Amino acid sequence: MRNVDKKTITQAFMNYCAADTEPRLRLILERLVHHLHAFAKETELTHEEWRKGIELLTRTGDITDEHRNEFVLFSDLFGLSSLVDMIHSAGDATPSSVLGPFHVLGAPLLPVGGDLIQENEGDPLVVSGRVKNAKGQILAGAELEIWQTAANALYSSQDENQSEYNLRARQVVGEDGRYCFSTVRPVPYEVPTDGPGGELLRATGRHAWRPSHLHIIVKADGHRSLVTELFPDDDPYLDEDAVFGVREGIVMHYELHDSRDDLPDDLAIGETIATPYLMVDFDFVLADA
Amino acid sequence: MRNVDKKTITQAFMNYCAADTEPRLRLILERLVHHLHAFAKETELTHEEWRKGIELLTRTGDITDEHRNEFVLFSDLFGLSSLVDMIHSAGDATPSSVLGPFHVLGAPLLPVGGDLIQENEGDPLVVSGRVKNAKGQILAGAELEIWQTAANALYSSQDENQSEYNLRARQVVGEDGRYCFSTVRPVPYEVPTDGPGGELLRATGRHAWRPSHLHIIVKADGHRSLVTELFPDDDPYLDEDAVFGVREGIVMHYELHDSRDDLPDDLAIGETIATPYLMVDFDFVLADA
Repeated sequence: MRNVDKKTITQAFMNYCAADTEPRLRLILERLVHHLHAFAKETELTHEEWRKGIELLTRTGDITDEHRNEFVLFSDLFGLSSLVDMIHSAGDATPSSVLGPFHVLGAPLLPVGGDLIQENEGDPLVVSGRVKNAKGQILAGAELEIWQTAANALYSSQDENQSEYNLRARQVVGEDGRYCFSTVRPVPYEVPTDGPGGELLRATGRHAWRPSHLHIIVKADGHRSLVTELFPDDDPYLDEDAVFGVREGIVMHYELHDSRDDLPDDLAIGETIATPYLMVDFDFVLADA
Repeated sequence: MRNVDKKTITQAFMNYCAADTEPRLRLILERLVHHLHAFAKETELTHEEWRKGIELLTRTGDITDEHRNEFVLFSDLFGLSSLVDMIHSAGDATPSSVLGPFHVLGAPLLPVGGDLIQENEGDPLVVSGRVKNAKGQILAGAELEIWQTAANALYSSQDENQSEYNLRARQVVGEDGRYCFSTVRPVPYEVPTDGPGGELLRATGRHAWRPSHLHIIVKADGHRSLVTELFPDDDPYLDEDAVFGVREGIVMHYELHDSRDDLPDDLAIGETIATPYLMVDFDFVLADA
């Protein structure tokens, strides 16, 4: 090993790994170090650039805490988070999309037709649809989880002026596979730009905006859980999501309605919702487990 | 961009970068994201593995502080630090090797022939040689910097029982290009194993040992500075340095001497050095700037 050089160092790394290294870990390390070394060789990475990279990682660690993970933001901005979603998205199901950092456990159950608007400002929006399998069969008993921004572009977990579970709910569908809730239209927002991730955006002339979206998780027994987002087709950032989360199959269309007569019968606030309101119908398709 | 998929996401990332992005940054990001995406695709990286990776980076940041940088340790253990050295090592000069985390500024000047043993335990060692250019011409006025472990396998910066600059010195060579100092034989040591870097070593059945070495920086006007290490050819870890720092061109040979008559004339402790002692002669060759 003392004669290790540019050509042999990648193999030298693998030779160091014991034969009984767990095979999946061995594969991941082999590919990781192969690409890490290829990156350094192809760019002829300088000591000064290496030092800057170490310094960037160090500052990324410094700004990361239990509420904010800047490594996740880099993964998002580099498209890695979305790529992992794409790699494991089932072809015959609704496309998955990034979970993001704003999911919290413990959201309350909301009956089908229930309301999330409560005290929130914003355009009223009624979302409904059904949960199915890839053959089009209804998945009775499926559970949805929903979370989104308030009108001030913040999630409840970012904003001490919102209640803990504001604009967050779980909903269990009945025999008809149907979900339904009223909410306010989510709004576009910027990913955090005050850390190393923001430096990357500024250095490459990129903006920090994400198109508005509803976060959704859908689970049903015997099926792969779906983590996704729904984006309205009229959002100005639809074609330039800072974190590459948009797919054609999760773009939805808001219909503007003037009359409460168009509302679903089971909507809890069907007699009081402000008009005009927006309405969207979107079915989720889950792949078999 | 809403139709971004596994095949197009790497190009989508580059399309986000503004045309006036600094060209070197653009190249580095292009290669970085290319290899990051290829790594994820070739391994079909799962969400759980992605989560473990983020968690590992987060813990690497947590253990990093002003005295210890675990990102540097990962770079060392992955062979990246050594690869960067190799990429920029001049072919007609003494090979470079890793700087490591134990270099500190401000080491005192030591006259040629001066002594670093002082109160240190360990085998006496006399190191001397000359500083030259690639044509073999003497480089008068070149400056060396030396630092190494004490007998307890710790550098002074790791050990509050050592004085600040114990076993550290700078030395300026005269018209004959010659350096010379007495010291104690450095000893092998383990890189830190109490953090995420240690987890990598255990998971792959690797040990943490580095062969014993002298750290050396050599500088001369009009020449590329050399950052390197010297390794004795009898070290048990010579062929399995945990951080891939050994090259054939920086392996030295200790000669065992019984008689003080063999010592250089200018050695300050020439009349008192314990016998037997070790002696090594090593010339440094610097490339033109």
